[in-house]
Amino acid sequence: MQLHEQPIFPRGFLCASRNCGLKPTGNDLSVFYSEVPATAAAVFTRNRFPGAPIVVGRDIIRKGRLRAVVVNSKVSNVGTGEEGIVNAQRMGIAASVELEVPADEVLMSSTGVIGRRLPIELIEAGLLGIRDTLVDEPLVGAEGIMTTDTQPKAVSLPVGDSVITLVGKGAGMIEPNMATMLVYIFTDAELDAATLDRMLRAAVEDSFNMLSVDTDTSTSDTCAILANGLAGPVDEEEFLAGLRAGCIRMTEMLARDGEGATKLLRGTVQGAPGREAARRVAKAIINSPLVKTMAFGADPNIGRILMAVGKCFEVEQDPQRISVWINDRLLFKRGCKTDYDEEALREELRGDPIDIRVDMGMGDGEATAYGCDLTHGYVDENAAYYSS
Amino acid sequence: MQLHEQPIFPRGFLCASRNCGLKPTGNDLSVFYSEVPATAAAVFTRNRFPGAPIVVGRDIIRKGRLRAVVVNSKVSNVGTGEEGIVNAQRMGIAASVELEVPADEVLMSSTGVIGRRLPIELIEAGLLGIRDTLVDEPLVGAEGIMTTDTQPKAVSLPVGDSVITLVGKGAGMIEPNMATMLVYIFTDAELDAATLDRMLRAAVEDSFNMLSVDTDTSTSDTCAILANGLAGPVDEEEFLAGLRAGCIRMTEMLARDGEGATKLLRGTVQGAPGREAARRVAKAIINSPLVKTMAFGADPNIGRILMAVGKCFEVEQDPQRISVWINDRLLFKRGCKTDYDEEALREELRGDPIDIRVDMGMGDGEATAYGCDLTHGYVDENAAYYSS
Repeated sequence: MQLHEQPIFPRGFLCASRNCGLKPTGNDLSVFYSEVPATAAAVFTRNRFPGAPIVVGRDIIRKGRLRAVVVNSKVSNVGTGEEGIVNAQRMGIAASVELEVPADEVLMSSTGVIGRRLPIELIEAGLLGIRDTLVDEPLVGAEGIMTTDTQPKAVSLPVGDSVITLVGKGAGMIEPNMATMLVYIFTDAELDAATLDRMLRAAVEDSFNMLSVDTDTSTSDTCAILANGLAGPVDEEEFLAGLRAGCIRMTEMLARDGEGATKLLRGTVQGAPGREAARRVAKAIINSPLVKTMAFGADPNIGRILMAVGKCFEVEQDPQRISVWINDRLLFKRGCKTDYDEEALREELRGDPIDIRVDMGMGDGEATAYGCDLTHGYVDENAAYYSS
Repeated sequence: MQLHEQPIFPRGFLCASRNCGLKPTGNDLSVFYSEVPATAAAVFTRNRFPGAPIVVGRDIIRKGRLRAVVVNSKVSNVGTGEEGIVNAQRMGIAASVELEVPADEVLMSSTGVIGRRLPIELIEAGLLGIRDTLVDEPLVGAEGIMTTDTQPKAVSLPVGDSVITLVGKGAGMIEPNMATMLVYIFTDAELDAATLDRMLRAAVEDSFNMLSVDTDTSTSDTCAILANGLAGPVDEEEFLAGLRAGCIRMTEMLARDGEGATKLLRGTVQGAPGREAARRVAKAIINSPLVKTMAFGADPNIGRILMAVGKCFEVEQDPQRISVWINDRLLFKRGCKTDYDEEALREELRGDPIDIRVDMGMGDGEATAYGCDLTHGYVDENAAYYSS
C-alpha cells in the first residue's frame, strides 16, 4: 500500500488550529470539518473511568453522521463530574454554531491533564472566527491536538478514486484497547455508517489495539472515521485493506513517538495456539520493561524475550518449541541459544525499528504488536508532566 | 508483630557465602544448612519458561524434606536445555557431598543472566571447604544471592518459643505470581510438611504474590521454607500470623529495593466487588508506569490513579463511587476532585513510603499490593545489565 509522500486531505475536508490560551504557547484547539454531510463511526476507550467527551461522544455517534470534530489539548475533562458533561456539550455547540452544522453532528475530544476543570470559556472564545482560518492541510489540525508528542502526525493514501487521511496524537498513557488515543480518519469514499463501523473495528483490531507505549489505558481514547462520499463508491475490500494499512502506519508513528522513545519496537508472534494467544504474547513482549530497556540500551539480553513469553501463564506453550529472532537473526532455536554473533546483534539493536519475532511452534496463531523503548525521557516527562 | 532488631537464625540453622569466580568481586555463592533434618515446602515461578533449578527443585520438594539450600548469583541457568538440568543436579550433589546431607534434600537456585551456560566447575570448586565457614548470621548468606540488590536482606521474628527468619533477594524482573524472586524461610518450629506447605501458600498469597517491581515475572522465582523442629510445637494460628507478617515485611524490603527505586509504593483497595477484583486493581495501581513516575517525581498528578483503576475493564465499577486517598489525604470523593491542598500533597509525595488507598464503594473486597517508583536508575540498570 503506497502512502502519499505528504499527507493531503480527501475532497471536501478542511481543518484549522489555533492557541486559545490553554497552553502558554503552541496550538491547543483544532477543528476538522466536512463541507458536505458525512457518514461516521467511532470507537472509544474501554477505561471504566471515561472522560466527559467520551460519555457525550458515545451518544452522538449513534446517529452515524458527523460534520465536524473539535479537539482541545492540555486539559482532558476527565473526573470532572456533571459540570464536565455540560462543558463537553458546550464545546460541541460552540463549534456547531461557528461552522454552521447541526450540534448533534459534532464530535468533541479533550486530551491532557485529568481531574482539572475544562476552561470552556477559553475554548468558546477560541472557536469564534476559526471558520475563516480553515485550510486543506491535515498537519495544521494535527498540531492543535498534540500533548507530549514531539511532532504532528498525519498520513494519507489513495484507494481507487478516494483518499484516506489519518490525523493522530499519542505519546503516553497508551495501551488503547478498542481504540487509540486520538485518531481521526477522513475519506471521500462513499460508504454507509454501518459499513464504516464494521471496517473501523476490523482495522483498529490489528493496529491501534496492538499498540502500547506504557500499558496505561487513557480515559480519552477516541478513533473516529468520517466519509463524505465526494469520490463516490469504492471497492470495499480494497478500502478495508487501505484503511488497515493506514491505521498500522499511524500506529507505528504513535509508537515511535511514545514518550521518551528513541525507537519503534515490533513484536511478532507466530505459531501460537490461536490468534488471541498470539496477541497476548506479542503484547507481553513489547510491554516488558526489561525488553524495552534492552532495546534502549542495545544490550542483547535476549533471555528477557523468553521470560516475556513465559510469563503469559495462561497461554499453552512448550519451552522446547520456542524460537526467537531479532531482525531475522535466529537467537533461540527450540528453547536453546544459537551460536549467534553477539557483536553483530548489538549493532542490530542500535538500529530502529527493532523487530522481535517469536515462533511458538504450537499452532497457526499470528499477531504483531507495536511499542517503543523505555528511556530516561519517559521517566523525565512523567515525573513532572502535571506541573509543566 | 515485633521483628528482631537484627536478623538472627532459628536454632540449628547456619549459612556461608563466598566468591567462586562468577562475579569479578563480591560473593556469588551461598549455602543455607540445617544441622538436623527439617520438613520443607516451596513455591516456584509460574513462568512457562522456568529455569533448570526450578524443574529439578519441583521434583526435590515433593518429599517435603530439605537439609540445605545452595544458591548462586550472576547466571540463572535458564534457557540452557538438557545441559542446564544436569548442571543444576551437579550443583545440588556438590553441596550435599560438602555438607554430608542426602542429595535429594538439597534445593538449588540460580539467579542472574538468562541463556548463558552455568559455569558449574566454578561452583563445584567453590563449594569445597565451604562447610568450615558456616556461621549463624543470616545476612552473610543473603549477600551471596544478591544480583542488582543494593543491600542484603534478612528479617526475623519470634513466634512463641520459635523463630522465623527470612532471607531474600529481589531487584528486577519481579512480579512473582505464586512465588517471589528468591526467599528462603527458616524456622525451628515443629511443623509437618503438609502444614508448612499450606501456611507458605497462604502467606505468599498476601505478600510476595502482591509484589511487583516491573510486571516482569522471573523464570527463577523460588520461595522455600525449612522447619527443623528444634523449638518444638507451636500454635499454628500464631505461627501463620507471624509467617505472614514476616513475608509482608520482606515483600516491602524487596519492593523498596526494586531496581532504581527510591521509595516503597503501597496500593490498598477497599470496597471492591470481591477479593480478586481488589487484588487486580491494587496491582494495576502499583504497576502503572504513570503512577510510578508520579511517585518518583513527587508530582501530584492524581488523575493517573483513577486511570489505573478504570483500566481494569473486567472489574465491575462505577466512577461515581470511587474515592482516593494518598497517605490518608482525601483527593477524590465519589469520582470528583476534593479541595485538597496541592502543596501539602506534593510534600507528602516526597516521602517514603507512599500509601495510595482507593475505596471503590462496590463491596467488601480488600487487598494491598507492593511496588516502587520508576526512575532513571531502573532504565540505567536495565539498559546495560547484561554487559555489566
